[in-house]
Amino acid sequence: MFKSILLIKIIRKYKQGCKLSHMALINKDQIEKLKSKANDLLNRTIDQHVTLAVTGLSRSGKTAFITSLVNQLINEGNGPELSFFNPVHQGQFIAAKRISQKNIHIARFDYDNSLAAFVNQPPSWPEPTNGISELRLAIRYKPTDSLLKYATDMATLTLDITDYPGEWLLDLPMLSQTFEEWSEQTLALLIKSPRLELSESFLKKVKEIDPFQEADENLLTQLSQEYTQLLHAFRNDLGLSVIQPGRFILPGELIGAPILEFIPFPSFAKIDANDYQNASDKSFIGMLRARYVEYKERVVRKFYQQHFLNFDRQIVLADCLTPLNKGPESFSDLKQAITMILESYNYGQSSLFSRLFSPKIDKLLFAATKADHITQEQHRNLESLLNELIHQSKHLLNYNAIKMKTLAIASVRATSAGKSLHQGQQVPVIQGRRSIDDTTITVFPGSVPEKLPNKEYWQENHFNFIAFEPLTSVATHECLPHIRMDQVLQFLLGDKMK
Amino acid sequence: MFKSILLIKIIRKYKQGCKLSHMALINKDQIEKLKSKANDLLNRTIDQHVTLAVTGLSRSGKTAFITSLVNQLINEGNGPELSFFNPVHQGQFIAAKRISQKNIHIARFDYDNSLAAFVNQPPSWPEPTNGISELRLAIRYKPTDSLLKYATDMATLTLDITDYPGEWLLDLPMLSQTFEEWSEQTLALLIKSPRLELSESFLKKVKEIDPFQEADENLLTQLSQEYTQLLHAFRNDLGLSVIQPGRFILPGELIGAPILEFIPFPSFAKIDANDYQNASDKSFIGMLRARYVEYKERVVRKFYQQHFLNFDRQIVLADCLTPLNKGPESFSDLKQAITMILESYNYGQSSLFSRLFSPKIDKLLFAATKADHITQEQHRNLESLLNELIHQSKHLLNYNAIKMKTLAIASVRATSAGKSLHQGQQVPVIQGRRSIDDTTITVFPGSVPEKLPNKEYWQENHFNFIAFEPLTSVATHECLPHIRMDQVLQFLLGDKMK
Repeated sequence: MFKSILLIKIIRKYKQGCKLSHMALINKDQIEKLKSKANDLLNRTIDQHVTLAVTGLSRSGKTAFITSLVNQLINEGNGPELSFFNPVHQGQFIAAKRISQKNIHIARFDYDNSLAAFVNQPPSWPEPTNGISELRLAIRYKPTDSLLKYATDMATLTLDITDYPGEWLLDLPMLSQTFEEWSEQTLALLIKSPRLELSESFLKKVKEIDPFQEADENLLTQLSQEYTQLLHAFRNDLGLSVIQPGRFILPGELIGAPILEFIPFPSFAKIDANDYQNASDKSFIGMLRARYVEYKERVVRKFYQQHFLNFDRQIVLADCLTPLNKGPESFSDLKQAITMILESYNYGQSSLFSRLFSPKIDKLLFAATKADHITQEQHRNLESLLNELIHQSKHLLNYNAIKMKTLAIASVRATSAGKSLHQGQQVPVIQGRRSIDDTTITVFPGSVPEKLPNKEYWQENHFNFIAFEPLTSVATHECLPHIRMDQVLQFLLGDKMK
Repeated sequence: MFKSILLIKIIRKYKQGCKLSHMALINKDQIEKLKSKANDLLNRTIDQHVTLAVTGLSRSGKTAFITSLVNQLINEGNGPELSFFNPVHQGQFIAAKRISQKNIHIARFDYDNSLAAFVNQPPSWPEPTNGISELRLAIRYKPTDSLLKYATDMATLTLDITDYPGEWLLDLPMLSQTFEEWSEQTLALLIKSPRLELSESFLKKVKEIDPFQEADENLLTQLSQEYTQLLHAFRNDLGLSVIQPGRFILPGELIGAPILEFIPFPSFAKIDANDYQNASDKSFIGMLRARYVEYKERVVRKFYQQHFLNFDRQIVLADCLTPLNKGPESFSDLKQAITMILESYNYGQSSLFSRLFSPKIDKLLFAATKADHITQEQHRNLESLLNELIHQSKHLLNYNAIKMKTLAIASVRATSAGKSLHQGQQVPVIQGRRSIDDTTITVFPGSVPEKLPNKEYWQENHFNFIAFEPLTSVATHECLPHIRMDQVLQFLLGDKMK
C-alpha cells in the first residue's frame, strides 16, 4: 500500500515536471534531476530484484553455465542476438554490469578466471567451484508495460546469482527423515548394483559391530572415512547423482568434526525397536543417531534457512547424457535425484514445516546440459526425456505456486554441426576437439531416446557420449557461443523486465 | 539453593544407607547402587567442569602441549610422578580417559595422530593444527575436603580442551577499534623495521589510489592477497607475533569471500575527515571500511560470543627464545602481542561491552615454551623475562577477577642436560638432535636475560637458539618426558579436584 502511494506521488510529480517543461518554466537539467530522483526512489521501492540459485547434479557444468549467463548479459550486442530473450529482442535491454555482491562473507563467484579459461588459447573448461559462491549483476533496461514506464525511461533489475553444490539440495529431504528412515533408504541404494560391488566390504564390517556396545570414536572416524570414499567413488567413477550426506564430500569448515563422522546403519531389521529407542548416545547406534540429528540441524537446516529460503528462482543443471552412456543404474539414479529435488520444493505443504518456512521459489528450470554433444535433431528428444524423468514426480510440486520448464542447452557450445555421407545417406554429425586426446573428430554420437529407455534400449546401447573441449577462444568482450541460453534468460528473467 | 538441598538429601540417604548396612538389613549391592546413584546425581549437580582454552603465539607448540597434557593425565603412573600436581601427589587422582567432545560440529583434536609422532622411530613433532579443535577428558578422583567427600568416594571432573589459533585472540582488540584506528595502529607497525623492508612496495601502491574513486573489486582482491602474503612472511620469515587480521592467514570456510578482502588504509593523515565520513560504500575507502566492519561482526564477534565467552581458563603459550634469537624487533612484537591479549581480558570493564558479554575466565597462564632448549639454570631467567613482558600491561587486567601465573615449560622434553669442560670450567650444556641436519650436538645456547633486554644485550647478542627434534620415542601407554607440566596442571586444575 505504502509503496503504491509513494509511486503515485512520484509519477504525479514527474508528470507535473513534464507539463512545466512545456511551459519552459523549469529547465532540462531540473527535469533530469527529478527523473533521476524518481528513478532512485523507484529502484528502492519496486520489486526489481531476483535471487537466482544455480545448482547441478554430478558434474553438469555449473561454472560454465554461470560464466556464460553473465557473459551473455554483460557482453550483449557483441555476438549473435539473444533472439528468444524478449528484453533484447524488443530493444528494451540497455546494459548489464557486475556490482558488489550481497553477502560479503560468502565466496565471490570468480567470473574473471572462469572466463579466462575460454579466452586462453587453446580454450578449456573452467575449474569447478567448491561450496557456495555469489555474484551480483545490475541490469539496466527500458520499462514498457509496467507503471515504471510512466515514471522513468530506465529501470534496474538487480540479479543475485548463488552457486551451490547439488548435493546440498539432495540433503534437504533428510529434514523430514528420522535416522532409521534415512538409513533404510540409503541401504536400499547400497545393496543394489552398481553401488553394491563397491560397498560390500564396508557393509560387512558394519554388520559385525554390536550396535549397543559403547561407541569407539576412532572406529567411527575410520568407518565414516570409508563411507566418504565410497561416496567419492559413486560420484566420480560410477557417475551417480544421489550422494548423501552431501557435506561429506565437500566438508569445508567442518573438516575433522565429529558431525561428519556417522554412517547409515544397515541392520535395523535385526534390532529391537525399544532397544533402539532406549539406546544411550554413548552406544554405537546412539552416537550415529545423535550425529545424524546434529547434521540435520547444523548443516541441512542451516543451509535451508540461510540460503534456500531466500531463493526466488532455481535452475537445476543435469547431465542426462553421461548417465545414458553409463547405463540403466546411473540413469535411474538421476531419476531418484530429481525426485528428491522436487520433494524439497514441497516442504511448504508438508506438515513438518510451517508456512513461515516454506521456500518462496516461483520458477524452477531443469536444463539438460551439453546439448552440443549430440546432433541438433536429437535436442527435442533430450528435452522430452528430461520431461519424462520429471513427470514421475511432478505431482510433488505445488503447481499453483511454482512454474516449471525443461530445456536442452549448451552453456558454451563446444562443437559445430554438419552433415556426413554414411552408407549413401546424408547423416547429421558434430565436430569437436575430443578431450581425451585433443584430436578434432567428426561423429554421430547416437540417438537420444524420447522416453525413459527400456530394456531393449539398454541392450542395444546405441549411445556413445564423447567429452569435448571448447572449440575456439573468444575475446573477453565477446559473447560465448551457446545453445538456448536466450530461452534460459527469458524464462528466468523475462517477466521481471517488462 | 536447590542444588544444596538436593545434595543434603542425597548425603542423608547415603549415610542412612551406611547405618543400615551395619544392621545388615540391606545388602552390599544395594549400598553400591545407592552410592552410584548419589554419584550420578552429584556429577550432574555440582560444578565439576572446566573449559580450558589453549592458544599460542607464532609457532609456540600448541599441538605438542595439548598432546602432552592429555598424555600426562591418561597415562598417569606410567612415568615419573607429577610431583607438583596435588591430586596425584596426595593420591587422590584415580584415572582420566577421553570421552566424546562437547561440540560435535567442531573438529576433534587428533590426539592419536599427534601422539603417534612421538611414538614413531625416530620421533618427530606432530603436525600443527589449523583453526579450532576440541577434546574432552573425564578425570576421576577421590574428593577430600569438599562436600563431595561425605557423599561419594569418587568424583569426576570433566575437562573440555579447546585449541584455537593465537591470531584469533589477537583479533579481539579490533572489536573496540574503528577502521581508522585499526589502520593507524597497523600502519605504525608496517612503517617500522623489520616489516617496512617487506611492505614498502605494497604501501607505495596503495598510496597511489584515490580513496574516493569507485572501488575496483579485482584490484582489492589483488591488494588483499598481497597483504596476506606479507602477513605470512611476517610470521614465518620474521618470526613476528602481531598478525592481523588473523583470519587472513587461516581463512577456513571464508576462502574467496570479500569479507577477507580488505587492507589497512595508510593515508588517513592526508584525507579530510568529513569526506571520509561521507564516503559511499562503493568508493575504495568506503568499501574497505564496510568490509572491516563486517569482519569485526561476522568473524571476530562470532568467535568472541561462540567460544571466548565460554572459556573458564586460558593458557597462552609463547616462544620467547626465537624472538630473543631474531632480535629486538621480533621481541618487541611479542611484547605488543602480549599487551593486546591482556586487553582482551579487560573487555568486561570497558564501556563497549556490557557485563553480560564479559568473559568469565578466572585463571590465565602464560607459559614460555621450549625451556628444554636452554640449560636448567636459565629457567628462572626465562620465567622472569616473561613476567617482565607481562608486567608492562598487567594493569589492564582486573586483578580481582583473574588469577595470573607465568611458567617456563617444555611440553615434551627434547634434550638431555649435562656438564661440559669449557676453558677449564664446568659449564652446563644440553644435548639433542638438531632439526636442520638430524645430528646429535652438545651445546650451551647462551644466557637468557632476566629483564627486558637493553641495547647492550642486543649488541652483544649472546643467544643462539637451536631447534631440536624429540629425543627418544615413547610407547603409547607411557608418559612423555616434560618440564613443569605438573605445575601447569596444578595451576589449571588443582583447585577443582580437592
